[in-house]
Amino acid sequence: MSIKYDVIKIAKAAREASRKLAGLSSEVKNKALLKMADGLEKEAGFLKKENEKDLSYGREKGLSSAMMDRLTLSDKVIKGMADGLREVAALPDPVGEVTKMWLRPNGLQVGKMRIPLGVIGFIYEARPNVTADAAGLCIKSGNAVILRGGSEAFHSSIAILKVIHKALEGAGVPADAVAVIPTVEREAINEMLKLEEYIDLIIPRGGEGLIRFVSENSRIPVIKHYKGVCHLFVDESADLRMAEEIVINSKCQRPGVCNALETLLVHEKIADEFLPEMGKRLIDAGVEIRGCEKTMKLIPQAKAAAEEDWSMEYLALILSVKVVKDIDDAMAHIARYGSLHTESIITSDYHNSRRFLREVDSSVVLVNASTRFNDGGQLGLGAEIGISTTKIHSFGPMGLEDLTITKYIVFGDGQIRV
Amino acid sequence: MSIKYDVIKIAKAAREASRKLAGLSSEVKNKALLKMADGLEKEAGFLKKENEKDLSYGREKGLSSAMMDRLTLSDKVIKGMADGLREVAALPDPVGEVTKMWLRPNGLQVGKMRIPLGVIGFIYEARPNVTADAAGLCIKSGNAVILRGGSEAFHSSIAILKVIHKALEGAGVPADAVAVIPTVEREAINEMLKLEEYIDLIIPRGGEGLIRFVSENSRIPVIKHYKGVCHLFVDESADLRMAEEIVINSKCQRPGVCNALETLLVHEKIADEFLPEMGKRLIDAGVEIRGCEKTMKLIPQAKAAAEEDWSMEYLALILSVKVVKDIDDAMAHIARYGSLHTESIITSDYHNSRRFLREVDSSVVLVNASTRFNDGGQLGLGAEIGISTTKIHSFGPMGLEDLTITKYIVFGDGQIRV
Repeated sequence: MSIKYDVIKIAKAAREASRKLAGLSSEVKNKALLKMADGLEKEAGFLKKENEKDLSYGREKGLSSAMMDRLTLSDKVIKGMADGLREVAALPDPVGEVTKMWLRPNGLQVGKMRIPLGVIGFIYEARPNVTADAAGLCIKSGNAVILRGGSEAFHSSIAILKVIHKALEGAGVPADAVAVIPTVEREAINEMLKLEEYIDLIIPRGGEGLIRFVSENSRIPVIKHYKGVCHLFVDESADLRMAEEIVINSKCQRPGVCNALETLLVHEKIADEFLPEMGKRLIDAGVEIRGCEKTMKLIPQAKAAAEEDWSMEYLALILSVKVVKDIDDAMAHIARYGSLHTESIITSDYHNSRRFLREVDSSVVLVNASTRFNDGGQLGLGAEIGISTTKIHSFGPMGLEDLTITKYIVFGDGQIRV
Repeated sequence: MSIKYDVIKIAKAAREASRKLAGLSSEVKNKALLKMADGLEKEAGFLKKENEKDLSYGREKGLSSAMMDRLTLSDKVIKGMADGLREVAALPDPVGEVTKMWLRPNGLQVGKMRIPLGVIGFIYEARPNVTADAAGLCIKSGNAVILRGGSEAFHSSIAILKVIHKALEGAGVPADAVAVIPTVEREAINEMLKLEEYIDLIIPRGGEGLIRFVSENSRIPVIKHYKGVCHLFVDESADLRMAEEIVINSKCQRPGVCNALETLLVHEKIADEFLPEMGKRLIDAGVEIRGCEKTMKLIPQAKAAAEEDWSMEYLALILSVKVVKDIDDAMAHIARYGSLHTESIITSDYHNSRRFLREVDSSVVLVNASTRFNDGGQLGLGAEIGISTTKIHSFGPMGLEDLTITKYIVFGDGQIRV
């Protein structure tokens, strides 16, 4: 009862704040972001003290060292949060942009103007620094935000919130625009997901379990980011040295993230020439190869791939490799096993580059480039709040623009409908 | 069990068809639409015969004459469906459009390309002609569609589907791209709403009850169209003759639709001059007026408005009228009682026109024009599939573009991430 009441109260206040936020100038919003950045750096001592409470609880609970690492607010992480906020402040404000304008035969001038969505519910796992990142992106795009972080980072998130509130008030922005659900009870998420009257969009960031739970229980629209089973197809006409560099970069530069390469598809006509050398470089880089029969003949160290391997998001130094007949075979494999995330073709053939770009149904489709470019910063969107793998509202990396929608504005001179 | 199985089978086949549809040229899709139009006209006799089954069942059930009217497939309605399909065929194809393209410092050229959503679930009430309209818009935008019409129109919808399937096959488009759930059981809707794996978007069109039911029970994103409580504010500086014409048009041209005017707000400084004459014209047009105290003094025939009147969507010749202090008071009233649908200001003041356009949070905001222009055709989108009053994916009238999303396309020359 009391959790339900608290969550509703927070959501109502956020809705109220979002109305004020929608009308704020970029100047005021930027000032708030810069004050948040300065505040976080100035209060580093306080943040680390509060963070220590989460860390000691984490040690008690026996969290993995990777988890403990993500949980830690070091000076470097705090500087990262502050710099992130300054970068967002420097980005153009999407709100108020008129994306199109046209004239109707009756003289009406019709345009589409970007406006904030309203209130965003942001549900995420351990990292406390996401609190500041998400708050910055939402404030800049004129949205209020309700944050529900992982219970392991509870004290850290509340401490970051305190610093943010002080900064918002100093800049003349309503403090209710950024709220943290002040409880570790899971029940609070269930309550949040029912408040379609006050919350416009839910963005969950975390493991597949969290995202499925949220999307199955929410009455509010959810932006989903499921796994990234990313493919790279080396076409018959590929520049094979370029292909090697791009495969190594896609697989090895940061294997634990969603845009890392998971399956390599190779045209059968160049497999004999390409795979032995490629295999050697991958194995030298510590990559385990799970291949089809032809691959196993060309790379002696390769293990046999099982059917499940073709849909695996390894997030590790493992790569499944398959020799395919042609581009159609490659695209059919991607359609069957892919996750609509990121796919790349390495080719020198004009027609095949066009076909791949047009026909592959993924949020980012690349020609002759690393899968690692599926990232808001890398594609030029500035900071990103997530990557959507569903085709509603946004598809692919989401920047500030994706936290807005357009309304129609109409300039008339007395027009009536006949 | 069997309904569940049928719905899943239909949805799987639609998903399969949607993959083929995404790659079809505009030529093929247009040919299919024109064949559908011709087929409906040629099979008018068959359609009317099947429609008669629904009509006789409707008479037995004692449906209202308005319902019976909506249910009837007359020659005129059939010609309307055919002409609608021809109009959609003549519209530009949104699929494949690159809406933006930019160059990154590393030479990557990044663009956003429109692609179909995939499979649309369309749930609607009595009118059987919606079957053809929705099929036309979905096919043109490269989407498969699963239609669930009102049970009263069951035989008519199935008959229309038969004609459509023949046309699709004649044009080389997979027939599974347009499906009708072949049962009147409500359970089929529940099954549809669970199939997030096969259906990308649900569009319900009908009364508030249907829309709430769908949005509370769906795991698939839903485009909601709730009621339209549309406002018009006559500012101090308004051209009062223009205001009169626009009020009459907004209220009386077609009072039963969602973009008809429901509440008139009048600046207190011009109320004495404006309201007596405006009231006379409204009453002459048969409009019942429910007003605030000041309104009642200026229009003797006005009844007192109750608190509920300010949030009523009358859909009838009734208008609530309130005298307000100024534009801030007007915008506060709209924020409190409005439905984010359509609001218009009548003004000659530059600053107030800018403020109203910027600050009013509705899907269509107009200056000096009738609220009746919130319509896809009137705003220049071509045909419309609905009006969204929620700010996710689309806000306002939805045309072909709103049945697409953009993916990122990236042209590289060997770029890797550093």
